[in-house]
Amino acid sequence: MKEPEKKLDWKHRLHEIIYEADTRMGRAFDIVLLIFILFSIALVMLESVADLNRTYYMEFYIAEWIITAIFTIEYILRIITINRPKKYIFSFYGLVDLLSTLPSYIAIIFGGHNMLFAVRALRLLRIFRILKITRYIGESDKLIRALKNSQPKILVFLFAVIIISIIMGSVMFLVEGPENGFTSIPLSIYWCIVTLTTVGFGDIHPITPLGQFVASFIMIMGYGIIAVPTGIVSAEITKGAHKGIPHNTQVCPHCNETKHLDNAEFCHNCGNRLNEK
Amino acid sequence: MKEPEKKLDWKHRLHEIIYEADTRMGRAFDIVLLIFILFSIALVMLESVADLNRTYYMEFYIAEWIITAIFTIEYILRIITINRPKKYIFSFYGLVDLLSTLPSYIAIIFGGHNMLFAVRALRLLRIFRILKITRYIGESDKLIRALKNSQPKILVFLFAVIIISIIMGSVMFLVEGPENGFTSIPLSIYWCIVTLTTVGFGDIHPITPLGQFVASFIMIMGYGIIAVPTGIVSAEITKGAHKGIPHNTQVCPHCNETKHLDNAEFCHNCGNRLNEK
Amino acid sequence: MKEPEKKLDWKHRLHEIIYEADTRMGRAFDIVLLIFILFSIALVMLESVADLNRTYYMEFYIAEWIITAIFTIEYILRIITINRPKKYIFSFYGLVDLLSTLPSYIAIIFGGHNMLFAVRALRLLRIFRILKITRYIGESDKLIRALKNSQPKILVFLFAVIIISIIMGSVMFLVEGPENGFTSIPLSIYWCIVTLTTVGFGDIHPITPLGQFVASFIMIMGYGIIAVPTGIVSAEITKGAHKGIPHNTQVCPHCNETKHLDNAEFCHNCGNRLNEK
Amino acid sequence: MKEPEKKLDWKHRLHEIIYEADTRMGRAFDIVLLIFILFSIALVMLESVADLNRTYYMEFYIAEWIITAIFTIEYILRIITINRPKKYIFSFYGLVDLLSTLPSYIAIIFGGHNMLFAVRALRLLRIFRILKITRYIGESDKLIRALKNSQPKILVFLFAVIIISIIMGSVMFLVEGPENGFTSIPLSIYWCIVTLTTVGFGDIHPITPLGQFVASFIMIMGYGIIAVPTGIVSAEITKGAHKGIPHNTQVCPHCNETKHLDNAEFCHNCGNRLNEK
Repeated sequence: MKEPEKKLDWKHRLHEIIYEADTRMGRAFDIVLLIFILFSIALVMLESVADLNRTYYMEFYIAEWIITAIFTIEYILRIITINRPKKYIFSFYGLVDLLSTLPSYIAIIFGGHNMLFAVRALRLLRIFRILKITRYIGESDKLIRALKNSQPKILVFLFAVIIISIIMGSVMFLVEGPENGFTSIPLSIYWCIVTLTTVGFGDIHPITPLGQFVASFIMIMGYGIIAVPTGIVSAEITKGAHKGIPHNTQVCPHCNETKHLDNAEFCHNCGNRLNEK
Repeated sequence: MKEPEKKLDWKHRLHEIIYEADTRMGRAFDIVLLIFILFSIALVMLESVADLNRTYYMEFYIAEWIITAIFTIEYILRIITINRPKKYIFSFYGLVDLLSTLPSYIAIIFGGHNMLFAVRALRLLRIFRILKITRYIGESDKLIRALKNSQPKILVFLFAVIIISIIMGSVMFLVEGPENGFTSIPLSIYWCIVTLTTVGFGDIHPITPLGQFVASFIMIMGYGIIAVPTGIVSAEITKGAHKGIPHNTQVCPHCNETKHLDNAEFCHNCGNRLNEK
Repeated sequence: MKEPEKKLDWKHRLHEIIYEADTRMGRAFDIVLLIFILFSIALVMLESVADLNRTYYMEFYIAEWIITAIFTIEYILRIITINRPKKYIFSFYGLVDLLSTLPSYIAIIFGGHNMLFAVRALRLLRIFRILKITRYIGESDKLIRALKNSQPKILVFLFAVIIISIIMGSVMFLVEGPENGFTSIPLSIYWCIVTLTTVGFGDIHPITPLGQFVASFIMIMGYGIIAVPTGIVSAEITKGAHKGIPHNTQVCPHCNETKHLDNAEFCHNCGNRLNEK
Repeated sequence: MKEPEKKLDWKHRLHEIIYEADTRMGRAFDIVLLIFILFSIALVMLESVADLNRTYYMEFYIAEWIITAIFTIEYILRIITINRPKKYIFSFYGLVDLLSTLPSYIAIIFGGHNMLFAVRALRLLRIFRILKITRYIGESDKLIRALKNSQPKILVFLFAVIIISIIMGSVMFLVEGPENGFTSIPLSIYWCIVTLTTVGFGDIHPITPLGQFVASFIMIMGYGIIAVPTGIVSAEITKGAHKGIPHNTQVCPHCNETKHLDNAEFCHNCGNRLNEK
C-alpha cells in the first residue's frame, strides 16, 4: 500500500491529511486542529470577561488574528484539495467553517466593539467539529440510535409538557396575579416550566396559599412525569442491549430450529452439525 | 367512492368536513381550526402582558371579536350538521367549545376588565382540541397505555409522597419555627414538597443547623424516591416492548388458539400437534 | 355463617368491628376513624396558622376536646375488646394511639402554649393509621417488595452520596471560604447535598470562578448519579414484572415439561392433558 | 488452626491484626480505627465552625494531638509489620495515611492559622479508609461493575452535556448580556450547567422575554436528557440481573460445555444428547 501512495501528488496527499484520519499525519492534523479550536473557544470565553479584556486587550487582539489566519488557511486548503469544492462549501461543516472565520474580517471593516464580539462568538460553532472525534467512540452510535428510536415518544412527551405548562401557567396567572410577580401569562408559563422541570430558580414564587397549593400540585406532577422520558429511553436501551445477544440468526439445516447460541456448532434440537463446511 | 359522496346533501358534506379527517377538506378544516386556536391562545397570552395591552388595545379588541365570531360560527355549524346535537353539546369537546366561546359575550354584557380577562382565559381550554391531532401520532397510544397500567402503582407512590411531606413538614415547623420563615404547618408542608421534588425555590430555607440536617435528610430522600415512579414507568414500557417475546405467531390448526410458546410442539388448548409435517 | 355470629357477646362483636375490616360494620368503622384522623390532622395544621388560631381560638379549643374524647374512647375500647391488651398496648399502632391521645391531657395539666402545640402535633403520628388502608391497594405490596430487594444497593448508593458530600463540601469550604457564605464545613456539606440532589435553594451559592467550576462539577455529578438509584429500582421492578408472568408452576404429569402458559390445558411438549379431573 | 498461629512472632501477629480482617482482633482493629477516623473528621468539621472554635479552642487543640499521635503510631506500626514497607508507603492508602498525618506536624512548625486548617483538612482524605468496609457489603460490587460497564456511554453523555452548556451558555450571554447578570461567557456556561442539571440556584436568572424563552428551552432539554444516563444505568443493571436467564445449569456429559438453552436437548458444542434417560 506504500507504493501507490507515493505516486499521489501533493493535492491528494493534503486531501488525505485534511479530510481523513486513517494515516498518522491525518490523525495528527485532526488533533492539532482540535487544539486550535479549543484554544479559539477559550479565547472567546476569556474575552467576554470584562476585566480580562481590559487588561490583556493587546494579547487577545494578536491571538485573535493568529487564530483567524490559521482557520483561513485551513479553509482555503480544504477548498483547494477537494475535487468538488462546492459540495464542501455548502455542506454543514463547510458553512460552519466559513461562518466561524469570515466574521473576524467583517468585524474589522465595519468596526463596533459589541457587534464585533457577537460575530466573533460565531466561532463557537466550530465546537461542532469536536463532534467528529466522536467517531472514535463507538458507544455514541448505540446511544444515538436509542435516542432516535425514542424520538416519536419523546416528542409526544414534550408536547404534553408544553400543554401542561400553558394550562397551569394560565391558572397560576389567574390565582396569583401581577401583584405577586406573575405579571403576564407568558411569564407564568415560564415559571411553570421552571417549576415542572424541577429547576426552581426562585425569582418568582407563589405567595398566596392557593397559589402554593397549585404549585405543590405542579411540582409533584413534574416530579412524577420525569419518569416518562426516563422510562422511554430505559426501555429503548434495554431493548437494544437484549436484541440478539443470546441468540444468533443461524437456522439448523436439518430441523430448521432457530435461536442458537453464538458459539453453537451443533443444533440443540436435533444434534446435527450447524455449519457443514 | 366519489359518486355516492356527490349525492350527499350539504349537511352530510359539512359533517364529514367538520367531524372527520379522512377527506382532504376534512384535514384542511382541522388544520385551519388548529391555527385559529393557536392564534386565539397567543392572543390571550399577549393581552395578559400589561404593556402590550395598553399599546395595542384596539387591535386586540378587534382580533378578539373576529376569533369569537369564527368560533361561534364553528359551534353553530357543529350543532346543525350533527344528527344528535345533544350528544355533541354535552360531550367533553362540546362543553369546551361552549365554555371557550360564551364568556366573550358575557364579558361584554357584564363588563369589568379583570373579570373579563378571567373568563376570556377560558378560551385556553380549547387547547385540548389540539390533543385531537395526537391521533396522527400512533406512539401516544403506547405511552398512554403504559401510564394507565402504572396508574395504581403511581397512586401509591403519590400517596407516600404526600404522607412524607405532611410528616416532615410538621417536623420542620417544630424545628425551625415561625421566626425562620416556617410560619405554619401548611406552609412547611409546601416547603417540604418544594424540597422533596428537588425544585428548591429558596423563598423559604432552613437556617438552624438542626433544620439544615433534617432538610438534608429530606433532600436525599427526595433524590432517592424519584427512582420509584421512574422504575415503575420504565418497567411498564419495557414490558410493553417485550410483550409477545415469549410467544410466537403460530396458530393451532385445530382450535385456532394463538400465543403458543416458542418451543411448543402441541397446542396447549386442544392437545393436537401444532405443525404436522 | 350468620348464626354463630349472633351467639358472640358484645365484646367479640366490637372486636370484629374495631380490629377487622371484613364485615360491613368493620369497614364503616375504619372509614369513620379515617375521617376523624384526617380531621384531627387538618385541625393541627390550621391551628399552626397564627391568624386563624387567633380568630377561631374557641372553635379550635372545642374541636380539640371532641377529637381527644373520641380517640380516648377508641383507645379504651381497643384495650377492652382485645384478649391480650398488653400485646396491643406495646404494638406499633398501640403506642402511636397512646402518644397521639395522651399529650392533649398532659398539655392541659402542665400548660404552656408552645409546648402544648408541640405535643399536640404528635397526633400527626396517627397518619400512620392511614397506611393500614393500603391493604386495600394490592399494588403497594409489589412496590414495597421491589424497594426491599433494592435496599442493600440503595444503602451503598446513599453511603456514596454522603461521602461525596463530605469531601466536596470540605473542598468548597476551602475554595469559597467564610467570606462567600460557606461559613463552616458542616454548612458546606449541607450546601453540597442541596446541590448534588439538584434541589438548589440558592441561599448559599459559589461566587469565585473556581468555586463555580467546582460547583459545576458537583452538579453534573449529581445529575449523573441520580441514574443509579433509578436504575436499581427499575431493574428490580422489571425483574418482578418478568418473573413468572408468562409461565405458571404446572408440571405435565406425562413428560414433566414445565413453564406452561396460564391458560394451557394440554402440555405443549407431549400433547397430554395437564389437569386430569 | 490455633497452633501454628501461636508460633507466629509478634510482628506477624500485628500484621494480621492491622492488615487483615478475618480474625476477631483484626476486625476489632478495623472498627476502632474507623471510629477514630470518623472522630477526626467530626473534629475537623466542628473546628471549622468559628463560634465553636473560639469557645473550645483548648479542647480541640488537645483532641487534635491525640488523634495525630494515634494516627502516627498506626502509620509506624503499618511500616514495621509489613515485609515490603515501600509497597505500602507508595500505595494509595499509604499516601493517604501519610498526607493525613504529616500536615499536623508541618502546621505546628510553620504556624499560620488558616494554612494550618487547610492542611489539617487533608485528614478528610482518611474517609477513603471507610470505603474499605464496603468489602463487607457484597452488593457494591454489582453496582460498581454496572457503572464501569456504563462508563463509555456515560462519558459520551457528559461530553454532550458540556458541549450543550458551552453553546447555550454563549447564546444566553448574547441574549441577556452583562446588564442582566450574565457578565461573561464562563459565568453564562456556569448558569447553563446550573439550569440544565435542574439545580437552579436562582443567583442568576434570565430577565428579558427572549432570555426566558431560551431558558425554558434549556430547562425542558435538561429535564429530558436526564433520561439518558438513567436509561444507560437501568439497562446495564437490568442486563446484569437478567444475565444467565436464557441459559440453564446443564453440563454436557460429553464435552462439559455449559450455558445451554433451556429447551436444548442436544449439546450445541459436540452434538451429543444432553440428558440420556
